[in-house]
Parts: sequence; C-alpha cells; structure tokens
Amino acid sequence: MTLQNDLILRTLRGEKTERKPVWMMRQAGRILPEYRAVREQLKDFIELVKTPERAAEVTIQPVDILKVDAAIIFSDILVIPEAMGLPYEMQEKRGPWFPQTIHNQADINKLHIADAEADLGYVLQAIRVTKKELHNRVPLIGFAGAPWTIFAYMVEGSGSKTFSKAKAMLYREPQLAHNLLDKITQSTIQYLKGQIAAGADLVQIFDSWAGILSPDTYQEFSLRYIAQICEAITEVPVIVFAKGAFFARREMGKLPCAAIGLDWTMDIRETREMIGNQKVMQGNLDPCLLYAPDEVLVAETQKMLETFGDKHIVNLGHGVYPDVDFRKVQLFIETVKNWKF
Amino acid sequence: MTLQNDLILRTLRGEKTERKPVWMMRQAGRILPEYRAVREQLKDFIELVKTPERAAEVTIQPVDILKVDAAIIFSDILVIPEAMGLPYEMQEKRGPWFPQTIHNQADINKLHIADAEADLGYVLQAIRVTKKELHNRVPLIGFAGAPWTIFAYMVEGSGSKTFSKAKAMLYREPQLAHNLLDKITQSTIQYLKGQIAAGADLVQIFDSWAGILSPDTYQEFSLRYIAQICEAITEVPVIVFAKGAFFARREMGKLPCAAIGLDWTMDIRETREMIGNQKVMQGNLDPCLLYAPDEVLVAETQKMLETFGDKHIVNLGHGVYPDVDFRKVQLFIETVKNWKF
Repeated sequence: MTLQNDLILRTLRGEKTERKPVWMMRQAGRILPEYRAVREQLKDFIELVKTPERAAEVTIQPVDILKVDAAIIFSDILVIPEAMGLPYEMQEKRGPWFPQTIHNQADINKLHIADAEADLGYVLQAIRVTKKELHNRVPLIGFAGAPWTIFAYMVEGSGSKTFSKAKAMLYREPQLAHNLLDKITQSTIQYLKGQIAAGADLVQIFDSWAGILSPDTYQEFSLRYIAQICEAITEVPVIVFAKGAFFARREMGKLPCAAIGLDWTMDIRETREMIGNQKVMQGNLDPCLLYAPDEVLVAETQKMLETFGDKHIVNLGHGVYPDVDFRKVQLFIETVKNWKF
Repeated sequence: MTLQNDLILRTLRGEKTERKPVWMMRQAGRILPEYRAVREQLKDFIELVKTPERAAEVTIQPVDILKVDAAIIFSDILVIPEAMGLPYEMQEKRGPWFPQTIHNQADINKLHIADAEADLGYVLQAIRVTKKELHNRVPLIGFAGAPWTIFAYMVEGSGSKTFSKAKAMLYREPQLAHNLLDKITQSTIQYLKGQIAAGADLVQIFDSWAGILSPDTYQEFSLRYIAQICEAITEVPVIVFAKGAFFARREMGKLPCAAIGLDWTMDIRETREMIGNQKVMQGNLDPCLLYAPDEVLVAETQKMLETFGDKHIVNLGHGVYPDVDFRKVQLFIETVKNWKF
C-alpha cells in the first residue's frame, strides 16, 4: 500500500519536496480535549499505553485534528525497563517511579533482554491497529528511549534535577554501568525491530537526559550505544534527538542515522556546520512560542523555516507542553504548510 | 588590613600566582555535619539566612574544615524578591515557593526597588560579622541571582522543569517582562553595592536558569541586564556564572566582568577560544565526580587543572550536591593545592 503523504520519508531520503513535513513531539496527549476524554475513561496513563485500541485512537487524533504529516505511536519510553523486569508506576504529580532500582550486578542479572513480541506485544499490537486505522494517510513513527536515558531512570528510580545516583554509577562502577547499558541496548534493538515489523515507517530515539552528562561521559556512556542501535536498524530511517547534547553535535554528525533533532537552545546554522550537509535536521521551535500572540508565533516559525533551509523536518525543540492551546498548534502547523521553499 | 590569602583576587587581576585558587559553589551547606548542627537549632533555612551571627558561622565553616581559598556569604538569591515586596517560603522537599506571583503591571507597580540597608540589612550585617570573624584569612564573596533567574521565580512561583509561565511572559508581554527585569536589576545593583560596602571582596552573579532560554531570548532578557550590573559594579571583580548558557559564550566574553563560570558540559578549550584570552575562567568539574573513587577524582581533577591552564579559579561546574561525603571535597581541594603550574 502506498502512503498518501510520504513527505517525511522523502525528506529523510534527501529528496527535494514541495514543502517541509511537520509533526510535534508529544502531539498525542494532553493538549487535545479528545485525548483527555479517552484518558478519563481509563484507570491511568499506563493502562492507556497497554490498551492497543485506545493507544491507536489517541495516536491518530493529531492526524485528524492537527493535520500533522506523521503519527507517532502513543507509548512511553519506560516500557523497556518494565519489559526487562523492572516495573514502574506513573504518579500523577511526581511522574515515573520505580519501586525497585538497579544497584549492583545481581540486580542486572535478574533483568532479561526484552523480547518484543512476548514482553511488548501490546505496543506492537497498537502499531498494527494504528497502521490499519490510519489507512496509509501518513507514516507512523516508532520510538524508544536512548539507553542512557533508560539507564538513568532504572538507577535513579524517578525523575531528578541532577540524576546524581545514575551519574554516580558511571564514575564509581563504569563496568557495571556498561553491563546494564548493554542489556538495555540489546532490548531496545529487539524492540525497535519489532515496531518496524509491526508497521513503523521510521523510528526516533529520544535521549531526554543527554544534557546532564559531561562531553566525555556522554561519548562513553550514551553515544556509543546510540551508534549501536543506529547500526542495527537498517530497515527504516532513524532520527536521533539528544536533548541538551550541544557538546556532542560534531560526533552526532557521524552517527549512521538519517536525521538529528535539535532543541531550541541550539543555533541552527552552527549546528548545520557541525553535523555536516548530509543529514536531515529536525526541530527546533521553543515550545514556549506556542504561548505567544499569533503574529509572534507566525513570524518566529517563518524565521525558523527560512534559517533551516532544506533537509528539514519541522518540529518543536522539545515535546509540546500540556497547557498549550491546541489552536496555537494548529496555527504553527498551518504556517509550516503555507511556507514555500 | 591585608588579606593573608588573596590568591583569588590576584588571579582575577590577571596576575601569575604560585598555585590556583579554589572554592566551591554551595560549600557552606548540607555537606558539612557542622552546618547541619547549626541548621537544626533554627526553625528553617530562611531563619538561618536572616540570623547574621549564625549565617556568618556557617559561612566560615568551609574555610576551617575544607580549607577553601574564599568564603561565600551564606544567603539565598531569593532574598531579592522578598526585599522588593514578594515574600517566599522554602519548603523542605519542594524548594522555594511564592504565595503570590507577578502577572501584570499592577503587580510590578506594587514592588519597590530594594534598599540594601533597609530591606537587606540582615545580609549586610552577616557580611560585617563574617569579615570580622574571618580575621582576613581569605576573601569574602558576595553574590546575587541574575535578573532573569530572579524573574523566573517571581513569575513562575516555584522551581520548574520548564519555567513555561515565566518564559510565556517573555513572548506574550515582552514590555511587561522588561519592566520587571529593570526593577530587579536596579534592586540587584543596590544590593551588590551594599554587600561591597559591608565588606565583600568580590561578587558572583548566578544565572541558574540561563539554559532554558533560546539564544535570542537570552540575549534580550538576560544578558543585557547582567551587562548593566557588570557596568555598575566597578568597586570589586565580578564573576558571572550562567549555567547552561553554552550558546552565549562569545557574547559573555564581551561582558565588562573579570571572570566567567563554566558548567561541566562546556568544553574548556572551546570555551576559552570563544570568550578570548582576557578573562579568567572558573569551574568546572562535574559535581558527580565527588562520588567517584579517590583515584578517579584525583585524575579527573588534575586533567581539568591541566586543560584550563592559567587564568583559572577552580570550582565545580555547579553547586556541590548535598549527599556528597565532605572527605571527597577535601581530597578535591588538596589535589588542587598540590598541583603546580
């Protein structure tokens, strides 16, 4: 079956397109009243993630309502620890919380390498249902957390301003850290391959906590595992988004992936110079511009479109914040669609 | 009276010194059992800040116990909003919290420009007591938050991962934001001049939330106010530490200040190239290296000392984390003192 809108895939192949593709991180979620209506019918966030029909429904909502050029499967990066044997809870105000965390080799030994079908079948099923119900209107993006970001939660046990427990393990017991990162990486490769087999047309790796590592530790404990994933995923294009990793942009230019995501602190032209001319870049509007008056939002979006030039997938520099008015999001997307090269 | 140890002041004047000066952000605080003993005798953190004799006592503790080359007055950046008429509470787990926040011009009109002696006399008195009790052993550092960071708390009302309310005001009502930033800047200049008159030998400006702004908004809403402060403070050397503002390093090189602080994500040689050869640089060990085994901590500290070369005030790249063993801090400081150019 041929996709009706394959703008993002053509852009990722380096082809010239009639306009730029646009989607938004966290586009399926609390900004949409339709999402909140579905969410209220279920016990909690994790139940929604684990109910393929409902996950598919909220995945497709932004395609209908926001008219984005790609859907991204509604799920959570922390399904990987759970699939490896380390379950978590999503607490309404505090965010993710792990009753048990990883301290030593014995804890790592208890984890298993996730099997996509056996351990994460609910995500694969959500992808299959979504693909069917999307009727090939737009491509579907699969995703996973980068191993370092997953590691950070498994060791820290929750979100943190500093992730000092997770970082302490890197310095105190680097071999132990590598053992865990290796197991997460293998699980993630299986998982992404499962998502692709189920129908994902491209995948994105989210390194949400890249920015708290030093350049040296980022190289050793994050980028090498992202590189392993990129090398293993040959079936579809891969986008790597490492929030805050401004210091690793030259090295990211060498990753075997199709596109690099930029957050809003990264100067567009400087980043292009650093990563070279081959890769597509994705991003990077400050999510807070969606609070701005219409004329400011339009002007800043146009300025961004101009500055990126070609080889650009339009997105925010971070996930959309939950209290944003979805009409601002619609204006952002319209502005992108009306802009011509 | 002559200071017995004026290493940091000589370094700030660009003189060659026999070794590098070292101090640590948050050196007076929870890492020291002696601090916790004082703190337990008082109702809360804010009472400690407001009791000059006790604030002086905990200011001097790290000079005695850790043998740092400078003391920094024990206080809080949020005394400025309070002095302007916007009080706050320090909640044990949640951090700072403002019962009222700034929404509009009427809220700004209710604020007054802080008078150092009338509104912040308790800090000036703490400085006077500290200077007396230090007996000129080491210089005393005064400090204030950068106007943007203070603004962020006054609008947001608490700490935040995104400070999206504060950032929203920059985009929605830039003139309103400038009006508030201007009032904060004037208050901060008065306050720093008061600290200097009371005895501070140098001052540091902390822009803790620099890193969440885009390069353009940082320039417009933060750096220009920091520049105003630097221009106004001619009496003593000024150190500017803007955490996360990697994107503004070239512009920071042009600030009329003596030194620029680096966080641990900033490559040392690259930053030197960006800010030029005139200024002293301060920093930048990853605070999590204080969890590392002794040999790793020593080796990484020596590597940092070597890479910075001269014109360097040794520090961490962020405040010391409260659960660090103070013996690791002692080892860090010894390592610096034993290293020779």
